[in-house]
Amino acid sequence: MSTGLERLSLNQKTTNSWSLPEAVNGCVRAGLHSIGVWREPLADIGLGRAKALIDAAGLRVSSLCRGGFLTAADDVAFEAALAENTRAIEEAATLEADCLVMVVGGLPDGSRNLPAARARVSEGIERLVPVAAKRGVRLALEPMHPIFTADRGVLATLGEALDIAEPYPAEHVGVVVDSFHVWWDPQLEEQVARAGRANRIASFQVCDWITPLPADSLLSRGMMGDGHIDFRYHHELVTAAGYTGDIEVEIFNADIWAADPAAVLETMKRRYLDLVVA
Amino acid sequence: MSTGLERLSLNQKTTNSWSLPEAVNGCVRAGLHSIGVWREPLADIGLGRAKALIDAAGLRVSSLCRGGFLTAADDVAFEAALAENTRAIEEAATLEADCLVMVVGGLPDGSRNLPAARARVSEGIERLVPVAAKRGVRLALEPMHPIFTADRGVLATLGEALDIAEPYPAEHVGVVVDSFHVWWDPQLEEQVARAGRANRIASFQVCDWITPLPADSLLSRGMMGDGHIDFRYHHELVTAAGYTGDIEVEIFNADIWAADPAAVLETMKRRYLDLVVA
Repeated sequence: MSTGLERLSLNQKTTNSWSLPEAVNGCVRAGLHSIGVWREPLADIGLGRAKALIDAAGLRVSSLCRGGFLTAADDVAFEAALAENTRAIEEAATLEADCLVMVVGGLPDGSRNLPAARARVSEGIERLVPVAAKRGVRLALEPMHPIFTADRGVLATLGEALDIAEPYPAEHVGVVVDSFHVWWDPQLEEQVARAGRANRIASFQVCDWITPLPADSLLSRGMMGDGHIDFRYHHELVTAAGYTGDIEVEIFNADIWAADPAAVLETMKRRYLDLVVA
Repeated sequence: MSTGLERLSLNQKTTNSWSLPEAVNGCVRAGLHSIGVWREPLADIGLGRAKALIDAAGLRVSSLCRGGFLTAADDVAFEAALAENTRAIEEAATLEADCLVMVVGGLPDGSRNLPAARARVSEGIERLVPVAAKRGVRLALEPMHPIFTADRGVLATLGEALDIAEPYPAEHVGVVVDSFHVWWDPQLEEQVARAGRANRIASFQVCDWITPLPADSLLSRGMMGDGHIDFRYHHELVTAAGYTGDIEVEIFNADIWAADPAAVLETMKRRYLDLVVA
């Protein structure tokens, strides 16, 4: 019998207090089939043990979070970032993750040169594509809400991410459509359609834009339904664009992190069924 | 002798504790020739008295802030907004302001329909253009940083504002290029150039994007030099696009509002000379 939850994935950041084994167990108990894994909790238990746990639980890995941080102006720091991304690609390959989410990084310290930082991202992706291709991994460029352009991700729009992805095969470079990051974009419809035509939607993530914005902007994401985003509309857009993959819920929010994770999963399931895929 | 300050305008929001007469005096003492006026302090002293004061001081009015708030789904509220904008247009005409800045409004309460809110803005502008034309006023559509899409301004990009302006004569509908609102936009260069070709740059405003973002996002703007924006680059872009008008400094920031306004003006002048037009 269909539960309607077949494509729902828990990005483990949503249950930030859980270790990876706890999150895997939580998914199984909640009847989910997919998980988005973060590298830090992965490192806590080790790649081999994580792979065994996830396989034993019968879960897919919808994404590994995250690679990126490619904007260093300094060459030594840039090469170190590439090496770190190579390790992340290795992990994504071992976990058979659908993609490696790339948060590209903000302006280098003291720099106000946004075009230069964006050019560095393109250079980094060019260097990483052969590494990803060799390991059969798909890099997923994540455009981030412009609230994060300065300090987290200089890619601000889906259109810009697609421009960077375009020279490379779609199976090695895709984009993330994260509702929180892209909902405001007046070109959302045309760029999601463009991403679909090029088979580049690597991940669809959902969480809400809430107001007033919490004091810590990094923790400003809300549970679906608590804010201003029309998720059903976004789901229709990615579906019309041909996306059939997992739908990941990734929420950075102090209140949600302080709540009982199992209860958060139940709310997430209900909101997903009522507001995203209904 | 040139002071280099000929085009610098104080948007009176930067010295929020000053009444309009105090701001006018402050501009004169500081050697400025232009002021951006807000409607609330204008109402405090009355339109006639304000006009006389500003004329006696020999100041230009670079903008009147603000019209807009055109997204009401409810027809009665929408008509009320049009009536309020008609009064604002009247005031802008009397003050001979270069433009009436239009902050278009966020999503209506309880609505998640962003395309509908944007369509309402277009409808409102269509209704207001004949009113503005009759009074010789230029409406200046202000694209706002996507941090404000939900609750303040559904126009998120210069490109979108230009699309709305396009059907109307440039002398009646222009756009605001506000560094804070547009600096992150990957289409900044092409859209500023487009605005220039169509003679639609009605206002150029500067203030900085600072991190960490202050807790109240409405007060998150910084003095030039305190954040991440390359103002010289923006100045070059609008200059290449043919803009020769005033350069307004509009800062919403609790710390700056708590400081001595005359000292704020001195800092503003120095930063303008060093970082914007240098």
